[in-house]
Amino acid sequence: MAGDVLRDEEIAAALGRQPGWQQTGAALRRIYEFADFHEAMKFVHRVSDVAEALGHIPRIEVKGARVTLTVTTDEEGGLTRRDLELIRRIDR
Amino acid sequence: MAGDVLRDEEIAAALGRQPGWQQTGAALRRIYEFADFHEAMKFVHRVSDVAEALGHIPRIEVKGARVTLTVTTDEEGGLTRRDLELIRRIDR
Repeated sequence: MAGDVLRDEEIAAALGRQPGWQQTGAALRRIYEFADFHEAMKFVHRVSDVAEALGHIPRIEVKGARVTLTVTTDEEGGLTRRDLELIRRIDR
Repeated sequence: MAGDVLRDEEIAAALGRQPGWQQTGAALRRIYEFADFHEAMKFVHRVSDVAEALGHIPRIEVKGARVTLTVTTDEEGGLTRRDLELIRRIDR
C-alpha cells in the first residue's frame, strides 16, 4: 500500500528520536558494538523475539562482537510506520 | 602462524565431505534456507553455541528464513584447520 510509505520529514523526525540509526535509501541501519560475541548474540536473541512479536523482521548481520541491523519494508517501495515501530521496540 | 594455512588440495578434499560449502577466496560460505525466520534463528542459536565452544566464530547473516555463514581465519592469511573444524561441527 503506497499510502503507508512515509515522507522524508516523517522519517527525519523519527530518526531524531532514535540515535544511532541511519537511513540508506529505503532502509534504516544501525551498528551495535558489544563486549564480545556472547553479548552480541544475547542482543540478537532479544531482537528476534521483538521482531517475531511484531511480525516484521530486520536483516541481522553478526561479525564477532558487532551486530548490524537493517530494517526495510521492501515490498512497499519505501519506509513505513512498521519500520519505525520495529526500531522503537528494538531500542526500548 | 603461516604454517597452519591449508593447501588448496586439503581444502578441496574437506569441502568434498561438506556439501553446500563454497570457497570464496580465503573464506568458506554456506547458505541455509529454513521454513521461516523462527527456524532460521533456532539454527543461529545452535551455531553460536558450537562457535563459542570452539572459540572460532563465523560471520552470520540472517535475512528472513535464509542464513548465510562465512567462516574465515582472517589473521592467518588463509584457511586453516580451525575453519574446517568449525564447519564440520556446524553441520554435524
